[in-house]
Amino acid sequence: MRMRKKPNLEERLKRCEQLVIKEPESLRGKWSELSGGRRICLEIGCGKGRFITETAKESQETFFIGIEREPGAIVMALEKAYAAGLSNIGFINADAASLDSIFDEREVEGIYLNFSDPWPKNRHAKRRLTHEGFLKKYNKILCENGWIFLKTDNERLFEYSLNSFSDFGYRLKNITFNLHETDTRIITTEYEERFISQGMRIYRVEAHKK
Amino acid sequence: MRMRKKPNLEERLKRCEQLVIKEPESLRGKWSELSGGRRICLEIGCGKGRFITETAKESQETFFIGIEREPGAIVMALEKAYAAGLSNIGFINADAASLDSIFDEREVEGIYLNFSDPWPKNRHAKRRLTHEGFLKKYNKILCENGWIFLKTDNERLFEYSLNSFSDFGYRLKNITFNLHETDTRIITTEYEERFISQGMRIYRVEAHKK
Repeated sequence: MRMRKKPNLEERLKRCEQLVIKEPESLRGKWSELSGGRRICLEIGCGKGRFITETAKESQETFFIGIEREPGAIVMALEKAYAAGLSNIGFINADAASLDSIFDEREVEGIYLNFSDPWPKNRHAKRRLTHEGFLKKYNKILCENGWIFLKTDNERLFEYSLNSFSDFGYRLKNITFNLHETDTRIITTEYEERFISQGMRIYRVEAHKK
Repeated sequence: MRMRKKPNLEERLKRCEQLVIKEPESLRGKWSELSGGRRICLEIGCGKGRFITETAKESQETFFIGIEREPGAIVMALEKAYAAGLSNIGFINADAASLDSIFDEREVEGIYLNFSDPWPKNRHAKRRLTHEGFLKKYNKILCENGWIFLKTDNERLFEYSLNSFSDFGYRLKNITFNLHETDTRIITTEYEERFISQGMRIYRVEAHKK
């Protein structure tokens, strides 16, 4: 996500800094201390944080970590979570590629991938967050019953991801080609709201480790 | 498929009767005698037989059996295969529900489901050829490395089938949302030709037993 430079970025970040997880690599293998023993779920590319904040409100028994590499987005996510007064959420300003240096094996229960960049050109396939290279990293940090939930408006990315998950040995569940057609009680992202208002359909799949 | 009554049906059937497999239940457990030791693939609902005849031409090392319950369709399939002078093909006039009384465990390598009736109403889900009830029958008769290849123009049936295969424990491979976009050397059914000429897209998936 490319964004305009946010005014007073440093100042705003400082106000919510208790929700920023600094030096996350130092917590590798010790995340349950931070989460208070709660299971840990990640959203990779949490953007402006609507989805993860709303999900954290609904599932107090889980600790949510939003991962976002764009400071201009993460500050908005931080402000949302801070305003909600949540104690089961934190944010890491990092790239998905560094996941396995942040989390140890089996430390994570689930990963959300919402509206990831489709990288439509074949030569960029390795950058897709469902490319085998990323799945290997997710697989390492996911626990035995771990899962990856994907939502996208991009049919090509969806088709690619179904194959990539399945080829990797993950079990696909609840594949849907039009999420909002049947279910209206869904926590949405900022992107998703816009897509729905434009009448676009949202694809979704769950990929389970076993 | 509902068809107009064919003129001279009996007479036409008689002309190609060498390709009709009569009393197929009597061959249960002994199909390799008929196939001459070749592996056996089925098309369930072979309709007018274009797909299975063309596929049999290309794969002489496999014995193909077209299963079709509609006599008016099967006669056209028979005539096609007869005209092609093929020795690796046969037809059974039966319903998919009787599959497991025709084939013994592990007698079949692969099953093609091409443009099966989508049975769009939920209360008719059991009639879909990818309903769990049918998958149980296929699973019994399929060999260890067995597979089911599905093609359809119906997005709902496709979505339903992906979930049904995956829930049953089959591994999905080569999922494609627009088969003819990339691959042009595909053997088509009669339906498929019509759909392509109308610019409709064809969905395809392979479901593998392991």
